[in-house]
Amino acid sequence: MLAKKDLEHKMLEQKDLDYFKSILGKENVKADKAHLIAFCYDATKERFLPECVLFPRDEEDVSKILKYCNNAKITLVPRGAGTGFTGGALPSSGGVVLSLERHMNKLLEIDEQNMLARVQPGLVNKDFQNAVEKIGLFYPPDPASEDYSTLGGNVSENAGGMRAAKYGITKEYVLALRAVLPNGDIIRAGKKTIKDVAGYNIAGILIASEGSLAVITEITLKLIPKPKYKKTYMGFFPDVKSAMNAVFKSLASGASPVAMEFLDALVVRALREKLNIDLPSDCGAVLIGDVDGNLEAELRFSLDILEKSFKENGASEFKIAKNEEESAKLWFGRKNASQCTTMYGSKKLNEDISVPRSKLPEALEGIYKICKKYDLKVPCFGHAGDGNIHVNVMVDKENKKELEDGHKAIEEIFAFVIKLEGTLSGEHGIGLSKAPFMKLAFSEAEMTLFRTIKKAFDPNNILNPHKMGL
Amino acid sequence: MLAKKDLEHKMLEQKDLDYFKSILGKENVKADKAHLIAFCYDATKERFLPECVLFPRDEEDVSKILKYCNNAKITLVPRGAGTGFTGGALPSSGGVVLSLERHMNKLLEIDEQNMLARVQPGLVNKDFQNAVEKIGLFYPPDPASEDYSTLGGNVSENAGGMRAAKYGITKEYVLALRAVLPNGDIIRAGKKTIKDVAGYNIAGILIASEGSLAVITEITLKLIPKPKYKKTYMGFFPDVKSAMNAVFKSLASGASPVAMEFLDALVVRALREKLNIDLPSDCGAVLIGDVDGNLEAELRFSLDILEKSFKENGASEFKIAKNEEESAKLWFGRKNASQCTTMYGSKKLNEDISVPRSKLPEALEGIYKICKKYDLKVPCFGHAGDGNIHVNVMVDKENKKELEDGHKAIEEIFAFVIKLEGTLSGEHGIGLSKAPFMKLAFSEAEMTLFRTIKKAFDPNNILNPHKMGL
Repeated sequence: MLAKKDLEHKMLEQKDLDYFKSILGKENVKADKAHLIAFCYDATKERFLPECVLFPRDEEDVSKILKYCNNAKITLVPRGAGTGFTGGALPSSGGVVLSLERHMNKLLEIDEQNMLARVQPGLVNKDFQNAVEKIGLFYPPDPASEDYSTLGGNVSENAGGMRAAKYGITKEYVLALRAVLPNGDIIRAGKKTIKDVAGYNIAGILIASEGSLAVITEITLKLIPKPKYKKTYMGFFPDVKSAMNAVFKSLASGASPVAMEFLDALVVRALREKLNIDLPSDCGAVLIGDVDGNLEAELRFSLDILEKSFKENGASEFKIAKNEEESAKLWFGRKNASQCTTMYGSKKLNEDISVPRSKLPEALEGIYKICKKYDLKVPCFGHAGDGNIHVNVMVDKENKKELEDGHKAIEEIFAFVIKLEGTLSGEHGIGLSKAPFMKLAFSEAEMTLFRTIKKAFDPNNILNPHKMGL
Repeated sequence: MLAKKDLEHKMLEQKDLDYFKSILGKENVKADKAHLIAFCYDATKERFLPECVLFPRDEEDVSKILKYCNNAKITLVPRGAGTGFTGGALPSSGGVVLSLERHMNKLLEIDEQNMLARVQPGLVNKDFQNAVEKIGLFYPPDPASEDYSTLGGNVSENAGGMRAAKYGITKEYVLALRAVLPNGDIIRAGKKTIKDVAGYNIAGILIASEGSLAVITEITLKLIPKPKYKKTYMGFFPDVKSAMNAVFKSLASGASPVAMEFLDALVVRALREKLNIDLPSDCGAVLIGDVDGNLEAELRFSLDILEKSFKENGASEFKIAKNEEESAKLWFGRKNASQCTTMYGSKKLNEDISVPRSKLPEALEGIYKICKKYDLKVPCFGHAGDGNIHVNVMVDKENKKELEDGHKAIEEIFAFVIKLEGTLSGEHGIGLSKAPFMKLAFSEAEMTLFRTIKKAFDPNNILNPHKMGL
């Protein structure tokens, strides 16, 4: 799709490219078709062609580029690995894609004594996890995209992941940021200190701002000691409600699972039929997760509570993996849940709603009911431990009516979730995909405040414009 | 001290008081001298007379008051219990003090299944802790002012406390806020959900904004299960450096103390001489704290590491309290550290610097050296586990030169701390007291960004103006 140029911004001209080349070198300025296509997509499968791709080498480069674009009113979209599910990194207004993965991808420092690290935004999450684990430290946030997604992208979307049930999300690990404002000013926000209450919490507002307020150039992340032991558990339930009751009971009783993942009956069926995974045919829901700790007694404590809560709520079986191989086997289904759901339709309308945990049974019941009305399958799985569920409305992409119905169902699901005090997105963000639904979730006063903040940071609206419904 | 009226704001007139009475009832509008004096101070001992004190009954009242003040350009300072150490709640420009402790002090809801609570801003921290602990839940943030300070004030200053070493600070427990903007708009920020990445993180920027961006009217706080066991430990060290090395070693080895508090030699001497506390006379530093958990084995795990790290770093003794009575005895010194330091001077210049943990020995050495130069005593104590130290420069308040020297020392200490990548404030905030030092800590670009944000929220600068150096 061609980017939609608005009237307030200008098309790139040769002189702009010449300027970029003068500061970055021509090898870091690309406007050929191959590059434009390579940087026009993300995980949404939407495509918008940028007018050029820039590869800044350092913060100074970023500052010069932003200053120039701000003066010239050229739009700019910062981009990590492009794994986002909502179009946050899509150049929907054309202009510049600022790719941070080629040069600005270094692990700058691991500070063992203070248990923190400084990284550049283009560093891949999993590479970072591996590096810190080598020296006995641990970075918990593990979005499903961890093998590819960058830490800059993770911060910009406030990425979650499975381990959020115990360890929280990206936000909880960001101690400090360096960033470049649209006018080219370089700022630091936050400190290496655990406590810091001097000045406004700028890092707090940059997290989850989807690259629309500033370009993040350095991240200081908190680390924790790597837990010594880990074990995987799994339970089979007759239905969703009993599984959810087991979740609440376990957590209220003091169990502290690292993850508490949920698969519904349609997902279980898909795993059985597509991957021949050995799951009971009468299984209405699965819960799977890990427990960890520095003491085997800690794991035992949580596992005992989980087993008791599962059995009291109708679980037919409670499995504990004896070793890593068995653990991998138990996890195999959950890790392949997303791809298997394609057996129910050629296109997946993939949303990631989040509700207060206690409302999960009601939320799922409502979602199934809405989709039944449209005769659509909706396999659901996700993070029961923190109330964040991946809702997959499956449609035949060649069937126009089904596609329309799918979109209607999604809108009804969002409205229903908001009524349950839930949110449009637990971890994927708003970007372009969910922008039309912002008015369901936010009042006019709240939307006005968002626009006011956007304008305060970015008066010329050059940075990732029109995202988040702004 | 009389408030300093600036030219952009207007003095209250009778018609303004009449309007306030028409919406709040006259019992909630006070402009008599007794009330003005009662609301003119905080823990800084600075005084600024407001022109009236208002006691809103609910969010609607707050909205009407703000809308009116915004139109009339009347300044307004939100106030909890007035326990702040930096003047955040002082009406330094006169105008209205908006007291939230009389009516808006309710515990609205404890949601056990979702482990969260909704509270009004005027609820006292300790009352809230007690209420949730009664049903087996736990709210960790425990500022030293917990018996008096309100949760609204805690959020506005992002209060810390002793338990931050293990459990983090207020910010980590705020799931959602309701607030009123200066124009009277009522907004919600955040959700009851654990994950929420829809829209800008407004709650993130309101936390620690010292009441200068909006008036918080409701807070949704995350709770955790109350740990079943707790034990107190204490160790005596020959000097500060060995104590700090024991801190690093313990944490790096996986100990997870709830608190890890530090007292230096001057504090130890004061406790011995003023309160006859049984501490070794040759003791150069004390570490004291608690460990907690759901398993005795967890406590044992941390205590074993602590004992080993303490002994390896020269601790002469490692005490573990056998029961609550012994625990209270060990804690008695730390809890009375602040008042005892008054033996070194009639006035205390009390700062709460914070540095990356590993720089604590260097920071303290530098602070002692600076104060020695001015021949001033500087007893220090505080939160070694998270790098946040209370630095008390003691002076004779009748001695003008000593007072001047004290202020010079403080400025040098701040400059030194910033050089060590530390911050002006770990938990007290900036308010008025530290406003002159903001330029040491922040660049012109950063200060400009703060001002831009302030202006975006509060274009007429009516809300707590001139605080934080803005």
